[in-house]
Amino acid sequence: MVIVLKSNAQQKSIDSLMDFLRSLGLDIHVSQGDDVTILGLVGDTSRVDIDLLTALDIVKTVRRISEPYKDANRKFHPADTIIDIDGVKIGGGNFQIIAGPCSVESEEQMNFVAKSVKDAGAKLLRGGAFKPRTSPYAFQGLRENGLQLLTQAGQANGMPVVSEIMDIAQLPLFEDVQVLQVGARNMQNFELLKELGHTSKVILLKRGLANTLEELLMSAEYIMSGGNERIILCERGIRTISAVTRNTLDLSAVPLLKEMTHLPVIVDPSHATGLAGLVLPMSLAAAAAGADGLMIEVHNDPEHALCDGRQSLRPEAFAQLAKAVEQVLPFAYKREAEASL
Amino acid sequence: MVIVLKSNAQQKSIDSLMDFLRSLGLDIHVSQGDDVTILGLVGDTSRVDIDLLTALDIVKTVRRISEPYKDANRKFHPADTIIDIDGVKIGGGNFQIIAGPCSVESEEQMNFVAKSVKDAGAKLLRGGAFKPRTSPYAFQGLRENGLQLLTQAGQANGMPVVSEIMDIAQLPLFEDVQVLQVGARNMQNFELLKELGHTSKVILLKRGLANTLEELLMSAEYIMSGGNERIILCERGIRTISAVTRNTLDLSAVPLLKEMTHLPVIVDPSHATGLAGLVLPMSLAAAAAGADGLMIEVHNDPEHALCDGRQSLRPEAFAQLAKAVEQVLPFAYKREAEASL
Amino acid sequence: MVIVLKSNAQQKSIDSLMDFLRSLGLDIHVSQGDDVTILGLVGDTSRVDIDLLTALDIVKTVRRISEPYKDANRKFHPADTIIDIDGVKIGGGNFQIIAGPCSVESEEQMNFVAKSVKDAGAKLLRGGAFKPRTSPYAFQGLRENGLQLLTQAGQANGMPVVSEIMDIAQLPLFEDVQVLQVGARNMQNFELLKELGHTSKVILLKRGLANTLEELLMSAEYIMSGGNERIILCERGIRTISAVTRNTLDLSAVPLLKEMTHLPVIVDPSHATGLAGLVLPMSLAAAAAGADGLMIEVHNDPEHALCDGRQSLRPEAFAQLAKAVEQVLPFAYKREAEASL
Amino acid sequence: MVIVLKSNAQQKSIDSLMDFLRSLGLDIHVSQGDDVTILGLVGDTSRVDIDLLTALDIVKTVRRISEPYKDANRKFHPADTIIDIDGVKIGGGNFQIIAGPCSVESEEQMNFVAKSVKDAGAKLLRGGAFKPRTSPYAFQGLRENGLQLLTQAGQANGMPVVSEIMDIAQLPLFEDVQVLQVGARNMQNFELLKELGHTSKVILLKRGLANTLEELLMSAEYIMSGGNERIILCERGIRTISAVTRNTLDLSAVPLLKEMTHLPVIVDPSHATGLAGLVLPMSLAAAAAGADGLMIEVHNDPEHALCDGRQSLRPEAFAQLAKAVEQVLPFAYKREAEASL
Repeated sequence: MVIVLKSNAQQKSIDSLMDFLRSLGLDIHVSQGDDVTILGLVGDTSRVDIDLLTALDIVKTVRRISEPYKDANRKFHPADTIIDIDGVKIGGGNFQIIAGPCSVESEEQMNFVAKSVKDAGAKLLRGGAFKPRTSPYAFQGLRENGLQLLTQAGQANGMPVVSEIMDIAQLPLFEDVQVLQVGARNMQNFELLKELGHTSKVILLKRGLANTLEELLMSAEYIMSGGNERIILCERGIRTISAVTRNTLDLSAVPLLKEMTHLPVIVDPSHATGLAGLVLPMSLAAAAAGADGLMIEVHNDPEHALCDGRQSLRPEAFAQLAKAVEQVLPFAYKREAEASL
Repeated sequence: MVIVLKSNAQQKSIDSLMDFLRSLGLDIHVSQGDDVTILGLVGDTSRVDIDLLTALDIVKTVRRISEPYKDANRKFHPADTIIDIDGVKIGGGNFQIIAGPCSVESEEQMNFVAKSVKDAGAKLLRGGAFKPRTSPYAFQGLRENGLQLLTQAGQANGMPVVSEIMDIAQLPLFEDVQVLQVGARNMQNFELLKELGHTSKVILLKRGLANTLEELLMSAEYIMSGGNERIILCERGIRTISAVTRNTLDLSAVPLLKEMTHLPVIVDPSHATGLAGLVLPMSLAAAAAGADGLMIEVHNDPEHALCDGRQSLRPEAFAQLAKAVEQVLPFAYKREAEASL
Repeated sequence: MVIVLKSNAQQKSIDSLMDFLRSLGLDIHVSQGDDVTILGLVGDTSRVDIDLLTALDIVKTVRRISEPYKDANRKFHPADTIIDIDGVKIGGGNFQIIAGPCSVESEEQMNFVAKSVKDAGAKLLRGGAFKPRTSPYAFQGLRENGLQLLTQAGQANGMPVVSEIMDIAQLPLFEDVQVLQVGARNMQNFELLKELGHTSKVILLKRGLANTLEELLMSAEYIMSGGNERIILCERGIRTISAVTRNTLDLSAVPLLKEMTHLPVIVDPSHATGLAGLVLPMSLAAAAAGADGLMIEVHNDPEHALCDGRQSLRPEAFAQLAKAVEQVLPFAYKREAEASL
Repeated sequence: MVIVLKSNAQQKSIDSLMDFLRSLGLDIHVSQGDDVTILGLVGDTSRVDIDLLTALDIVKTVRRISEPYKDANRKFHPADTIIDIDGVKIGGGNFQIIAGPCSVESEEQMNFVAKSVKDAGAKLLRGGAFKPRTSPYAFQGLRENGLQLLTQAGQANGMPVVSEIMDIAQLPLFEDVQVLQVGARNMQNFELLKELGHTSKVILLKRGLANTLEELLMSAEYIMSGGNERIILCERGIRTISAVTRNTLDLSAVPLLKEMTHLPVIVDPSHATGLAGLVLPMSLAAAAAGADGLMIEVHNDPEHALCDGRQSLRPEAFAQLAKAVEQVLPFAYKREAEASL
């Protein structure tokens, strides 16, 4: 951490700041110029509150050199984390496709889609039971009943299941759900993250609409600092000036995140683009960029899906996608162990 | 609502869509061109699920003409809503300043700041007890104890208090808090919004980091559809390419929101800019633009504030601000009753 | 085009508007509701000035159904345009890599890099002679002399060359340059675009920092309406909230543009990311997403490059990239002729 | 300027970097930690090419402490610049309104509008003759003829005039135009900026669609380094996720720019919002925030304006605006001479 002091800083205030910093166990290297004094802090600065320092009257700027995340940091955990979900592995060279409908709608739908996506190669089944919708008048999901239909379809087809949790009070209903998704709108619902840190569930953490990669990792850190290290990160697009797609898929996030952290990183091209016609090209691109997996919306009848049908694929299109992705995978980007960006 | 059909739409599918729309109680006006068929829907379309329609194979685009929010819509409630908080009125020509520290830190601090801001003209006291922080290692607030210190300072100075709630499980602790703030990161925490709709608390709803005004009103609608209509909206800046300020304060949101809705609209220049030196000019600008109030961070000792000290004002600076704002208010923008943008 | 009239529109004004529209050769289909009147316009609306209509007092909204670009529109030119640059073809299944240094710096550099990238498989040589730099104090390029070094290196290695033109007054210096690049900062320099429409040069048109795909195509339309139809479009990232990469590469632009237009679409991962370590993964992703080519910065000595060295590859790394991209190409996304998003 | 070196940097490379830096006339203060070496540079770093340093293999990050702009920097020119345009002063406490139509359309229009806005208090007349339009099929301005009509109306009413120049080749036509506007789309048309630096015209430089304040000042620096120091800066909104207004007016830019530079700063609420109904409230807000002036679109007949009529005011509305702004001005924000943000 580097602290640049203002040119008019009093020596007395500087001394008092330095005492405070040393009390945190940090070493200080002072660089004194004519115009400017710079303090270089050496030691574990990941728990230093940068806002506190920035607020001081004598401080001009503060800049971290080491990252504020620790448990998620690849520097302290160089090997890829491989997450094992009832035998389905993701990360460290294991690529997986999570597929299923945006919303669970009926037993018939779930069974049909589950069987279809399994036959096509997906190993994990997704389905929304609690749905975050912008409008209170839009379909909110089948909730408890939806989770039952999802887990039944998962069990019948031997697939672990993924579903979104919107509030910790819903946790008891997720007993048979292997992977709990935290949606983009809840990426900084810190109370929820803290509670999930005390569970033993795998957490699928989606990037927020306007959040940086560092913020995503800090949210992972909330979960990890509670003891739960089984986290999958998901890039799903950010809001930009783009007018055609719902969001802008930021694929550079894939190699960047894999450099910053040891956690697996997957991509959701369905929500990122909002257009079914873009799901295949963006899936191929995500695979080529080195993602550890994909999350794809598949619906037996996208035209009548109760939500987000516009971006869902029919089972046949999904099967083609799975095959096309498999062909690209052998030639995908592989981060070199010693690489640094 | 206008539905534009694809040029290759089959008549059978069109008929079936029209039957469905009529079943929702809507009238349909068909405009048939050589190339294109347009359906104009007349009736209450605020509860129609636009995603459902857009997903249909025969549909090219769907466009709302009337707004998807109803309870918050000024069209159905032309008069300004005035919210009375234990005698302190906001909205409908009543301008109020909410002031206090970012975080409650001690009894001494709260009493000193409460008295200072009250003397300067603030009628409502704010103080964070549950703090949403990006890092799990940053100060998280005094929580229950913080709420006690806040409400005591409020009672001692005859000021209703405002504090952020991060999870509905915290509600019992907020018994003596008159105004519950929903922070930017929770603007689309729909489970929380629904629950707040069943309380009788005043809700201060902040705009999310990357949310549109319509989305803000849809979140208000979540609360209102539960029965609680006492909502204050707060513009607090959005994330943009701007590199100097923490966020970009979008002051055009003030006259726009006041056109769209009857709810009071206030501005938080402290969080919007993140820089104490910008709080005064942006407060004057917000008042001039027609805001119903301001929320300002004030700290007795900003240099040692446990969070966000960089953007806090000292009591003297706040007193100057309150006086300067008062001078601008008589000349501020007043929306004409019959105006339409 | 659909025009929605305000509910209080006078019949006299409506009639006058309809006369005006008919005078433009358009058919009008009127849909009359209780609350709203909708005019559907049929005919060639690509030259209708939407701002003019929107400004009318009786008009609520106007929405295009057909696109405002015509020469660039795939609807009127379904087959891919293939551009032949002295025998090097791009588009319509022909994938090309353009490579070379950000700035031309010396004869030795150009010859070394040109030979290296040619050996690795690049068919077109790039090099900046006129450099758009944010600061007037930064290196501005070797200008005329730079163009000479570039064209000499191109001729010596049998490669057509690409270089940025910043003002039409520079055109005479570009006689031996086969491809004229219009940079992101000049994408809406309409006077320059118009003049380029009267040349017979191939134009490489880069997307602006904050421009939509429709705006990019409208800029292409400026050139095409002057008679020059040899345009290559280039996605090079847009400005977003992202803090690590210089820009956010928007790869969904590739399949979207290829749907909207018949012109070739390439990707510049060097400028899009600004980080050499991201060039390989983003090149693989771009190829997989269906791009017609790549533009890659290569420098013999990136550490001492006079500009943008941070994002340049060494020749060896470029050779690996070219090989890796070649492996992905057979499995890349191919737009189906009859596809529609 | 602070350079943080990578932990694995070789001493030989560090020595060679330090020799290079000293050759630029800079003093270096080295701070050596266990993990990290920091170089603090003291001296005139405004002409150091930051990209060059960042590209070095041994460098981790580089951060400027002093600003890269010099002529525009308030630090080196503490007093407000006052620009005198044929007797009309702007800056340093002189507030001016520039008003007129988006496009010059006819002699009758110009004379009517010029007289109206002059009577209402505007001292400068604007009118577009060369129009930057997204579409080549939209009205492009009356060009040479438009400039004549504008200057005639200006002379007849004793008002200096403002008009946009899109290419330096147009300069001879602007002989009688006192203020040359550089539009948002040309803010980084560096060849144009350089040429304008050699004229003696006042330049009205508008902020680009997605440009930072520092970039705006660097563009001013291009002009100033050529010798022309008569520049007025103009905030006109940036592109964001906002869906209702054309752009997002960033009013915090006003106090920030006035802190960073001594040049006058005005605001264009017409283009920033694109909605006539927002021009009054945003004008009041801009004045309150401390702007040195406003640029307002006024049209005698906004409904039939050939461009941007949607955002133009009628003369009566403009007269009300001018009066309302005048009332706010005495209470507007005034930067304290010794202030620092």
